[in-house]
Amino acid sequence: MKEAIYAGTFDPVTCGHVDVAERAAHVFDRLTVAVAEDPAKTLLFPVEERMALARESLAHLDNVEVTSFSGLLVDWARARGVHTLIRGLRAFSDFEYEFQMALTNRKLAPDIETLFLMPNEDFSYVSSSMVREIASLGGEAQKFVPAAVADALRRRLGPR
Amino acid sequence: MKEAIYAGTFDPVTCGHVDVAERAAHVFDRLTVAVAEDPAKTLLFPVEERMALARESLAHLDNVEVTSFSGLLVDWARARGVHTLIRGLRAFSDFEYEFQMALTNRKLAPDIETLFLMPNEDFSYVSSSMVREIASLGGEAQKFVPAAVADALRRRLGPR
Amino acid sequence: MKEAIYAGTFDPVTCGHVDVAERAAHVFDRLTVAVAEDPAKTLLFPVEERMALARESLAHLDNVEVTSFSGLLVDWARARGVHTLIRGLRAFSDFEYEFQMALTNRKLAPDIETLFLMPNEDFSYVSSSMVREIASLGGEAQKFVPAAVADALRRRLGPR
Amino acid sequence: MKEAIYAGTFDPVTCGHVDVAERAAHVFDRLTVAVAEDPAKTLLFPVEERMALARESLAHLDNVEVTSFSGLLVDWARARGVHTLIRGLRAFSDFEYEFQMALTNRKLAPDIETLFLMPNEDFSYVSSSMVREIASLGGEAQKFVPAAVADALRRRLGPR
Amino acid sequence: MKEAIYAGTFDPVTCGHVDVAERAAHVFDRLTVAVAEDPAKTLLFPVEERMALARESLAHLDNVEVTSFSGLLVDWARARGVHTLIRGLRAFSDFEYEFQMALTNRKLAPDIETLFLMPNEDFSYVSSSMVREIASLGGEAQKFVPAAVADALRRRLGPR
Amino acid sequence: MKEAIYAGTFDPVTCGHVDVAERAAHVFDRLTVAVAEDPAKTLLFPVEERMALARESLAHLDNVEVTSFSGLLVDWARARGVHTLIRGLRAFSDFEYEFQMALTNRKLAPDIETLFLMPNEDFSYVSSSMVREIASLGGEAQKFVPAAVADALRRRLGPR
Repeated sequence: MKEAIYAGTFDPVTCGHVDVAERAAHVFDRLTVAVAEDPAKTLLFPVEERMALARESLAHLDNVEVTSFSGLLVDWARARGVHTLIRGLRAFSDFEYEFQMALTNRKLAPDIETLFLMPNEDFSYVSSSMVREIASLGGEAQKFVPAAVADALRRRLGPR
Repeated sequence: MKEAIYAGTFDPVTCGHVDVAERAAHVFDRLTVAVAEDPAKTLLFPVEERMALARESLAHLDNVEVTSFSGLLVDWARARGVHTLIRGLRAFSDFEYEFQMALTNRKLAPDIETLFLMPNEDFSYVSSSMVREIASLGGEAQKFVPAAVADALRRRLGPR
Repeated sequence: MKEAIYAGTFDPVTCGHVDVAERAAHVFDRLTVAVAEDPAKTLLFPVEERMALARESLAHLDNVEVTSFSGLLVDWARARGVHTLIRGLRAFSDFEYEFQMALTNRKLAPDIETLFLMPNEDFSYVSSSMVREIASLGGEAQKFVPAAVADALRRRLGPR
Repeated sequence: MKEAIYAGTFDPVTCGHVDVAERAAHVFDRLTVAVAEDPAKTLLFPVEERMALARESLAHLDNVEVTSFSGLLVDWARARGVHTLIRGLRAFSDFEYEFQMALTNRKLAPDIETLFLMPNEDFSYVSSSMVREIASLGGEAQKFVPAAVADALRRRLGPR
Repeated sequence: MKEAIYAGTFDPVTCGHVDVAERAAHVFDRLTVAVAEDPAKTLLFPVEERMALARESLAHLDNVEVTSFSGLLVDWARARGVHTLIRGLRAFSDFEYEFQMALTNRKLAPDIETLFLMPNEDFSYVSSSMVREIASLGGEAQKFVPAAVADALRRRLGPR
Repeated sequence: MKEAIYAGTFDPVTCGHVDVAERAAHVFDRLTVAVAEDPAKTLLFPVEERMALARESLAHLDNVEVTSFSGLLVDWARARGVHTLIRGLRAFSDFEYEFQMALTNRKLAPDIETLFLMPNEDFSYVSSSMVREIASLGGEAQKFVPAAVADALRRRLGPR
């Protein structure tokens, strides 16, 4: 059985994340969506809510499980016996950061491979940070995130 | 009458901004320079001073008006009946951020178009953040900003 | 009256070109689509057919005229009294070439401004060369070009 | 059984190609290396020799088969019932071309996914064209290609 | 005697920095490694420790001296009579920032030249920030930094 | 004595090349401008004329010598006992090609270092191919090349 891990902060999960997860779930037998517990950067949503939103947004995918992780991703993946990491490579994302991280992870764990996947071009410009910025300015985040996430953003950032 | 909006933080306005505004004012009948009131990021100058410096630096352009805005730029533009946004695309700027923002704005407001314009190559590397850093280290910011802005930087960051 | 020129080889015109022309026609009062007569590179379609296909594909735009040009674009534009050039800036196009050309044109003709415009993200990866390659391999070019162009490609490159 | 196709011109196969194939063969149950029969571009080696060199260079991988293909890759993959394409994404390769091709292929065949994989950083700058150029100038191609390929280059391009 | 300055924050010095210093020390008669005293960004190590770690990591290079500096780098370099700055240009670094800084420095001090040098591809993805992140997550930083730095990271960030 | 080589096709030499040579001649004691005799690509000017134009354009630099070379550059440099190569890194040039070549050269000759240097931003978009294209279309090449080169282009490409 081919298994892969799709890790990230998911603060919050966007339509782009959902698209990448759908594609990875199609290629692999089983996909684990791994939500980073407490990364260094400041977050809008606590890990429990980020997991709940990811779970609700990915409920239509039978072979996808949402969980959280802490520490080095490669150590965590190896402990679970999974050797394939998935990353979405958006047209407008930070290639250099992605490549730097993939090569660093490979040095730390040569047995773990990172595969990159392009989201649908409709989501190629969607990022969690842009979504948070739009929502904080009172914009229509629902065009970029699943409905449950749009609700959560509204609750968290208030009406305007 | 063709009208366009050139929005930004302008913290502070640089020679590159002035160059873009001059070019846009040449192409369009009327240009509104829109200074963001309170963006998330920490600023050196308050909005009133950023507007005053922009006004003084653009005083030679008859068809340019400087004002401030808050909230989502596309909502504000639409409320004014303006459907064209101008962005300077510096050789050394963040293309990906610019494109991500332009596509996001288009999704939020399909009736509003973003046009990109290249500043003079002499200013292609000038950014407000670089100017602030130089000034804070005691460097000669006047090579990169209008005279009024160089004075304001000196007043704000003190002599060294 | 604000007028702009959108020049290119258009070998053949794609849905991406049509999208850029539509947007430019919306921003400006009048748009001239200028088909390069005999560029250095080898072409699939002669200039008359490239113009005819562009005309048919842009027939729905009242304020757009299709014509041909030869020699330096900036000289031709200036002779017509037009001072604004439009370029589509695709997410997957050659930025550096576009910028190099825009700055070169500015040096040759400081009174002429190049404005960049992003096509719809659905067309951000469509190029004439990719379309020619797909058609020559028997692929479904009609997903990337107007119907008249798909027919012309089929006639030119034959059934498979 | 998870199967993938790694297609290219392989003119000739390099250590970078071998590295990507090894990684893909590790992730998938079966990998088909598909050598393009007669691409538009001029080639140094005929398809039979390109296949033979690839076969010899990949002989150590049990689950890898080398074959040739013609026409549209996505049509050929679909006819074989394979829905995953592998591409190496070198740090110094043409991202934009890769992305443009992946999105074009997706439009032509939405059921086929392209996964990108980074070669070892030691090979991140190795390309077939650079290898051909070095060999034609009398350089030591054996640092960049398998031994059999270095021999073939020497035979084809002669001693100097 | 040809002399150059290699300035940075070195928080902490990495194998990539050491590689760049070795190469620069080979090209120039004398190299000064200049550690920025108190840059705006928050640092992990105080300047004394950053200098000590750099000194220990570069002790094998006879013609290299480690010192600290504050204020504008170009002013400091000029005061020392040195007119050549060295920067490492990593494949995965921020080109635009590097270029913006080099051109800004040239405007501030036209008599000072910045030369870029590529580190070994094995270190092309190593950055101080990635090293700090790995160490803070309990990862094996010793693969990316000299032994003395790995020890210092362990002391500073504690065992996990 | 510190010596460096600045190699290229120089077809023809541009103001950007002259600027890079001036800067390198300032940093090093002696600079050899090495004109590639017969590269694979088709050229406008024969090697003798390319050398003559380079010589005339660099006559004001006492420590610069113009010569030609063939074969692998690193072999030629090593035979002359020079271990430093200079490359201009234009803002709008092909980074990836430059980096690929530098790393390939390092693999072929680990004892030879490539240093990159930024030309004046006024020339950051000037390339020989753009100059040839402008001249062939009857444009004013003299804005981008030394006077002698503008004359040569006029003689070669004729009046229009």
